[in-house]
Amino acid sequence: MIIDADTGIDDAMAILYALKHPGIRAEGITTVFGNIPVERATDNSLRIVRLANAPYEVPVHPGASAPLVREPTGFAAEVHGTNGIGDVELPASEAKAQAEPAADFLIRKANELEGRLTLCALGRLTNVADALVRDPSLAGKLERIYVMGGAVRVPGNVTPVAEANIWGDPEAADIVFRSGAPITMVGLDVTMKTLLRQTDLDLLLRLCKPENRDIARFLNDSMRFYFDFYRESNSFFACAPLHDPLTVLAAVEPGVLRTEEMRIAVECESRLCAGMTVADLRRRPQAGSPVQVAADVDAELAVAKLLNVFL
Amino acid sequence: MIIDADTGIDDAMAILYALKHPGIRAEGITTVFGNIPVERATDNSLRIVRLANAPYEVPVHPGASAPLVREPTGFAAEVHGTNGIGDVELPASEAKAQAEPAADFLIRKANELEGRLTLCALGRLTNVADALVRDPSLAGKLERIYVMGGAVRVPGNVTPVAEANIWGDPEAADIVFRSGAPITMVGLDVTMKTLLRQTDLDLLLRLCKPENRDIARFLNDSMRFYFDFYRESNSFFACAPLHDPLTVLAAVEPGVLRTEEMRIAVECESRLCAGMTVADLRRRPQAGSPVQVAADVDAELAVAKLLNVFL
Repeated sequence: MIIDADTGIDDAMAILYALKHPGIRAEGITTVFGNIPVERATDNSLRIVRLANAPYEVPVHPGASAPLVREPTGFAAEVHGTNGIGDVELPASEAKAQAEPAADFLIRKANELEGRLTLCALGRLTNVADALVRDPSLAGKLERIYVMGGAVRVPGNVTPVAEANIWGDPEAADIVFRSGAPITMVGLDVTMKTLLRQTDLDLLLRLCKPENRDIARFLNDSMRFYFDFYRESNSFFACAPLHDPLTVLAAVEPGVLRTEEMRIAVECESRLCAGMTVADLRRRPQAGSPVQVAADVDAELAVAKLLNVFL
Repeated sequence: MIIDADTGIDDAMAILYALKHPGIRAEGITTVFGNIPVERATDNSLRIVRLANAPYEVPVHPGASAPLVREPTGFAAEVHGTNGIGDVELPASEAKAQAEPAADFLIRKANELEGRLTLCALGRLTNVADALVRDPSLAGKLERIYVMGGAVRVPGNVTPVAEANIWGDPEAADIVFRSGAPITMVGLDVTMKTLLRQTDLDLLLRLCKPENRDIARFLNDSMRFYFDFYRESNSFFACAPLHDPLTVLAAVEPGVLRTEEMRIAVECESRLCAGMTVADLRRRPQAGSPVQVAADVDAELAVAKLLNVFL
């Protein structure tokens, strides 16, 4: 698995889950602008890899610092804090970021692993689109891309109709969805229901393995910022949605989701609807590549599986 | 009440209901292109008025023959038949269409009736927008506009996201929704659930008052065409949605609908999403004029009320 992330609070948890999961081999992390600038995503990723203390090396490859064609918009400091991880100070890593850029690394690893590479894309799809444009054959070489992004039967979060990752680079998302790669879209339809609660974190602190104590503390401390944001924005009470962790979970525990095959078009022209993931839900035969869209989730099970890895 | 219609099969039933309802005074019918060319909508309206045999005169005022700014698209002969009323031959009327255009008539009647005029807009909103542009004070002079159009939580019918009346003239719809007029939007969220069945028509033929026998026959014969279309397009079995009749019903029986206050923006820029009625369903404070959007319907009650007027 490669995880492509704009390493904010829930991205960090997603990476920690992957690095602790015995069934996942994390080949590397590629970083992208989004919640924070790409430099900070790279630095955060290195710190999270250090915190996870994985028994093998996990290289971090920096990627895009801006959308494919649009002007960059601002970052999401109000959601993830100025440093992207809830303003929690994690020890710096001694490891350095790789010189090989994210898109090159994706293409190389997909070739090396011959159809066995899973990609979890947790941020803007800029790196993935970049790689697909440079090597369109990449679409046929990935086991599957799990995309955290989009919204079909539920409202958006950045606009009434658009989710942040798609909205942040619609042209990149359009390239990825048209690429023909096998895609599972894990969007707000399911992530907004997959709530981590403060009570879960209290229990994690009590019950985690001693070697995971620092991880539990980091999750508890960084999520405080995230919970505050969701209280202000969505009136959530001491909880927040696990967008990115659910997406990584989906790759190893597909049973937590119910998916529906849909054709997804990404709105790129309009201001009002930019970044909308448009599905045709009418009873009609449809054109375009099929996407497996997560339509429902066993949220209780998903949160339990995400936390049990640290016990 | 004034009914603005592109008099197709369900528009015809809506007009017949209004003209037979003892609590509705139909001040006139204005016509617009849409299902059919405006000339045919005018001619059909005159024939329907004759068929209804109302105890007072109901003038028919021709309106727009094309969208405000876009090129005209084709008509909907596959839904409503070449003549717009399921290719049923109704006797021609001896009455003629009025010389006064639709928009002028709307403005004049709104002034005369001083806040007591209800407008049921059953087609493209071109005439209504035209009147509002010419006299913006019209928005404050209407008791309410009931708009058949749009889709919020359900798919569109012309495109994955757009309903035919809004899609057919998005700029006109945008003007109407921004006008500040009190609006109830009766869209596909409720109309697609309000199904008239062949069994209802069989009973209507048996049970209608003798004076309404020709109306019952017309409804039965014209709806055959409509049912055929919905069987082909939506796999419906011997039934079809009462888009326009439900909209007129809503004006006199508001209890059949559950409405939610929303802000509606109309997508005008994009090709993919043109004509989408975008509502902000997030838990956020919102800008823009509020629209009462029909979110649910007691379909059983609605169909019963629509048919009982002929018994």
